[in-house]
Amino acid sequence: MRQPEHLAAIDLGSNSFHMVVARQAQGEVRVLESLSEKVQLGAGLDRDNRLDEAAQERALDCLARFGQRITGIPRGNVRVVGTNTLRMARNARQFIARAEAVLGHDIEVVAGREEARLIYLGVAHSLADDAGARLVVDIGGGSTELIIGERFEAVETESLHMGCVSYGQRFFPEGRITEAAFRKAVTAARQEVLSIDANYRRLGWAQAVGASGTVKAIAQVCEENGWSGEGVSLEGLDKARRKAIKAGSVDALDLKGLRDDRKPIFASGLAILLGIFEQLGLERMQFSNGALREGLLYDLLGRFSHEDVRERSIQALMNRHHVERAQAERVWATARGLYEQAAPVWRLEDDAALDTLRWGALLHEVGLAVSHSQFHKHGAYLVSNSDLPGFSRQEQQGVALLVRGHRRKLPLSALNECPEDEQTRWLRLCLILRLACRLHHARNDGPVPALGLAVDGQALTLSFPEGWLVEHPLTLADLEQEQEYFQAANYTLTVL
Amino acid sequence: MRQPEHLAAIDLGSNSFHMVVARQAQGEVRVLESLSEKVQLGAGLDRDNRLDEAAQERALDCLARFGQRITGIPRGNVRVVGTNTLRMARNARQFIARAEAVLGHDIEVVAGREEARLIYLGVAHSLADDAGARLVVDIGGGSTELIIGERFEAVETESLHMGCVSYGQRFFPEGRITEAAFRKAVTAARQEVLSIDANYRRLGWAQAVGASGTVKAIAQVCEENGWSGEGVSLEGLDKARRKAIKAGSVDALDLKGLRDDRKPIFASGLAILLGIFEQLGLERMQFSNGALREGLLYDLLGRFSHEDVRERSIQALMNRHHVERAQAERVWATARGLYEQAAPVWRLEDDAALDTLRWGALLHEVGLAVSHSQFHKHGAYLVSNSDLPGFSRQEQQGVALLVRGHRRKLPLSALNECPEDEQTRWLRLCLILRLACRLHHARNDGPVPALGLAVDGQALTLSFPEGWLVEHPLTLADLEQEQEYFQAANYTLTVL
Repeated sequence: MRQPEHLAAIDLGSNSFHMVVARQAQGEVRVLESLSEKVQLGAGLDRDNRLDEAAQERALDCLARFGQRITGIPRGNVRVVGTNTLRMARNARQFIARAEAVLGHDIEVVAGREEARLIYLGVAHSLADDAGARLVVDIGGGSTELIIGERFEAVETESLHMGCVSYGQRFFPEGRITEAAFRKAVTAARQEVLSIDANYRRLGWAQAVGASGTVKAIAQVCEENGWSGEGVSLEGLDKARRKAIKAGSVDALDLKGLRDDRKPIFASGLAILLGIFEQLGLERMQFSNGALREGLLYDLLGRFSHEDVRERSIQALMNRHHVERAQAERVWATARGLYEQAAPVWRLEDDAALDTLRWGALLHEVGLAVSHSQFHKHGAYLVSNSDLPGFSRQEQQGVALLVRGHRRKLPLSALNECPEDEQTRWLRLCLILRLACRLHHARNDGPVPALGLAVDGQALTLSFPEGWLVEHPLTLADLEQEQEYFQAANYTLTVL
Repeated sequence: MRQPEHLAAIDLGSNSFHMVVARQAQGEVRVLESLSEKVQLGAGLDRDNRLDEAAQERALDCLARFGQRITGIPRGNVRVVGTNTLRMARNARQFIARAEAVLGHDIEVVAGREEARLIYLGVAHSLADDAGARLVVDIGGGSTELIIGERFEAVETESLHMGCVSYGQRFFPEGRITEAAFRKAVTAARQEVLSIDANYRRLGWAQAVGASGTVKAIAQVCEENGWSGEGVSLEGLDKARRKAIKAGSVDALDLKGLRDDRKPIFASGLAILLGIFEQLGLERMQFSNGALREGLLYDLLGRFSHEDVRERSIQALMNRHHVERAQAERVWATARGLYEQAAPVWRLEDDAALDTLRWGALLHEVGLAVSHSQFHKHGAYLVSNSDLPGFSRQEQQGVALLVRGHRRKLPLSALNECPEDEQTRWLRLCLILRLACRLHHARNDGPVPALGLAVDGQALTLSFPEGWLVEHPLTLADLEQEQEYFQAANYTLTVL
């Protein structure tokens, strides 16, 4: 597999956007440029969870600047991910279409646990490679990720619904900081942590590490005031808390080491970190410069060197739900043969399309773990809703659509909900998968005849060796049924 | 547990309704009465899958007659189940409410696989208890069940979407019987069987047994014409097929042993049975008098003698999805304690309510097998959609509702979709389960304080030992959140 020279990763965070551009040579990665802008996308979510126009404009302006720096880097070498705000925003799809047009690259939205996994990867690469277990904490604008990991591997990932922007609005409205409000905020944070407390303590950790802007700002205050040596200590947090309450408001906050632009979310971030310290019984936390964007970069590098985390996730899902591997592999082999004949004409000759088809084929029967009745629907549910490390939401959606559409009626209304630029591609992959499934209806190792698939726009012609179909009337009957299903999507299937 | 003296089972089939009344004494079961009426409920399904008024009237008239025979038998000793037509009908809920009013007993709708399991149980009790594996086939009006079992245990169950009523309408419209139509019908049946063929052959069987009216009618024709000795043979089926084609229409069918009321569905039933014979390579099939209603009767008896199949299904689902048993048991123990205090006032003192609460408690975390995010929803999906032997759809719906509602917002709109007479009961069980979950939020074996729960209409008062809540501020915060959730359902929670 080719090793790309230039790579870039962009994190569209709820508070700030971050970009890193790197160069790879002889197995080493060198960061060329690192940029952050405080876009405050999360502050643009209204009560109805819609992203307002002002926030969208701020984001698009920033992306125009970022875009300039990465012109010339090919599509597959840039990863751009959205997190909590884009998970929540009801108009995320429309915003993403605008942002992709400005940036010239695809944007993925990742689930909270996937975000946590990537953060850990970024942190792990910033620390010495020692063998002890680590607890990593990243307090974002809308969510907080807690991860236990060892070396480069996240063992347990969690994304909790608390962030310094949302807690600021909830507990410190109009910037008022009171002792009662502080106590409530800490209790709320402890409640969130309580549900993972027992499990995390059971796994244990040798060191606690914080990542990203909120922990960094708190660490700087603690360090510059001489409250905690390096990083954050429980004592330092307590001193900062008392100072903040004494100040009484965001505007009056005057702490050595605290930047003005950090003031509005300092108290809420502090309350969350205190809640985590108290509930997990922490005494100290060091700070790491690695975070989501670095994790994205290393994850991208892994894909080029046969360490694709996504492949491992698919295998794990197959194992967890006892997928009959022989049948899955048979269907995949036949689907691949059909794909290779159709891809050049249908312009599906890219890794993303082939990966989607492969994963759809391997997982098409995963829903049998729930029930045989409607198992294509159960399978799509499992693929859509499972934690699949390495996958963006859109990628999961594509695989789920293939699973959903591999038998019975084509899921045309579900397809309409998919990103527009994927609709035709995914439908065509789905048609290929359906044909492969029909050819293995008997679920045995009987030989599959040499198949010809010719495609031309919305017309498919599937040809068999002479006389084969006469000897296999059930396959013919299956394909006659498919002809009707195809027609509903305005495709025609001719069988020769 | 008390052993009931009189029992009854009613099968609301798509073609006929069947009832059996039995008496139990000293461990023996004696059938007192066995009734069948050809209601043709399935023929009353219109294109839109709505049950027309004429069919509903026929059904209600029949149930009024059945109802007379079982007056005096207590509620828990009568089981009434609906099958394919009631699974399909969009207005099933309204019809069931009318039917329950006429009959005076609850009606359950069972899934296809549960129907298959019950059929096997009925057949097994009608045959000699030998050790060989059996293939059991039951061709109904709307679905066909195929089961492999040994002794009294179904090993593999399947319900296929083909029945003599639906195939009659599809392949022999207006009663015309042609050779081409017959071939198409047999091929369609073979296609259905093809998907289970490899698996069933792998398991294997020593004898094939048919159950219910369709196979019985075919066996009678074969026997009375001297085509097959006892039961059905491939040769006999072929002779019957040729006679039917020669007759050319349902009206012209004149076969020794064929009753007039069986003529309209004889050709379609024959085609389905031929398809099964050909695809599974059968030569002979014997006929058993046991079927769904007998299975229901024996399943009901099992529940009185600690062989409740439902309990086993719950345990199997917990194992399959690796539910953390210690937490489930803790929550169940606490929920039970609260239930015992509330049940007398809320009139929840019956087995069904306690069972629903127990299963909801044991399964409330099953959705973690999919993902932590929204796991209450995933759990409800798994409970609703899994094959749970022994459960009716309504029972599954009740357990799913408790799982769905054990955390976050109360699922009030899902509750509105539930049978009306269950809504209040299930909501109250759900409130009890939520409190129990909150008390075990920390997921450890720490002691639970002595809890007092007093209920009065829509008001709950939960009381703790003095001082306990002051020492456990997180539990207090949890319960304060619950107060808000309860309010949305017009319930109040007071914490003392």
